[in-house]
Amino acid sequence: MKLYDLERSGNCYKIRLMLSCLGIAYERVPVNIDVGEQKTDAFLRLNPRGQVPVLEDEGRVIWDSTAILVCLARRFGGEMWLPTEPFAMAQVMQWLVVEQNEGRYGTSRARARLLKLQSEFARSGEWSEIARLTRTALQTLNGQLRNADWLAGDHATIADVACYPYAALLDQDTATLPDGFSVADYPAVRAWFGRIEALPGYVPLPRRPAPA
Amino acid sequence: MKLYDLERSGNCYKIRLMLSCLGIAYERVPVNIDVGEQKTDAFLRLNPRGQVPVLEDEGRVIWDSTAILVCLARRFGGEMWLPTEPFAMAQVMQWLVVEQNEGRYGTSRARARLLKLQSEFARSGEWSEIARLTRTALQTLNGQLRNADWLAGDHATIADVACYPYAALLDQDTATLPDGFSVADYPAVRAWFGRIEALPGYVPLPRRPAPA
Repeated sequence: MKLYDLERSGNCYKIRLMLSCLGIAYERVPVNIDVGEQKTDAFLRLNPRGQVPVLEDEGRVIWDSTAILVCLARRFGGEMWLPTEPFAMAQVMQWLVVEQNEGRYGTSRARARLLKLQSEFARSGEWSEIARLTRTALQTLNGQLRNADWLAGDHATIADVACYPYAALLDQDTATLPDGFSVADYPAVRAWFGRIEALPGYVPLPRRPAPA
Repeated sequence: MKLYDLERSGNCYKIRLMLSCLGIAYERVPVNIDVGEQKTDAFLRLNPRGQVPVLEDEGRVIWDSTAILVCLARRFGGEMWLPTEPFAMAQVMQWLVVEQNEGRYGTSRARARLLKLQSEFARSGEWSEIARLTRTALQTLNGQLRNADWLAGDHATIADVACYPYAALLDQDTATLPDGFSVADYPAVRAWFGRIEALPGYVPLPRRPAPA
């Protein structure tokens, strides 16, 4: 199994965390986005969206971090990480969507903007909307986690694996910056970070990127 | 089964289309967002995000259109609308994410902006980014559909049910407007519209909202 990977990417980290929790060995293929390796013809044949992560497994190619989590959970996770019972699967799905929606256009982008990461994604968008979506994401997570240890069901699922990375990176990388976000304001989220960090197979977050 | 519904919403239409294709009877509960019914305490107890659609089924409540599609497909669709084989499920997931990402922040928002719909979502965001994401969404769909009849696998799945509505509404509602989008520029997408419209159980798109 090959993971086309970028160390500092929260989306790639989701897959590294999942593979480690599942105990699956794999080969890392670093993709250097600073020189545009994700936009070469060879890479675009793997992923027409031109993004990492991409997983190659048994000669099949899966792009998109959420789709890769689904694939890995179904292949190796039994009913644990993505249950097939309709209501249980739908509950996991709700959080995968929150992560793609408020998480991506809020939390993840807020971090990129505050760290001045060099990407079109980090530069575009209005700060007022980014900050509003980020607060919505954190409040939505906190609301759920006030009443439950995990986002969906009574144990960790890919909902947690998907939603943890950018929330935790936002806190780690921006809490001390002006306009930054701290989970000190979202205590149920902070407590959930601790539960995830205690999962067997947990791997540390990427370090804060050097300032641009 | 109860669907908390808004006639003109593409996300609600996704669920009406799915239920009709599955041949499932249900009760429609109209939610009047023009007077803020989706933000009342009673509604927020159903969906903390304060959005339609919401499905109530056997006393359980599912919010988010994508999560509802997953729930319905698993409950009533066998392996047809959402296969459980890992790679097949991941392929469906890729398109659910494209819809939540470029679809929501591009296609859906472009339509809302061009029609001047009254919502915070329609008003915020930079047009240059909205237009770029919309083109990415349409190009990504067109690239897939040049080589395949359906988005994932060899028949219709919830990937198609999720991605069709806002793409088709964008074309129906904005093709003749300045800065509007027409699928005449994306012929594989146009041909796919025809295949979806021929599905047993297809229901017509919501009509174009009256100008604000």
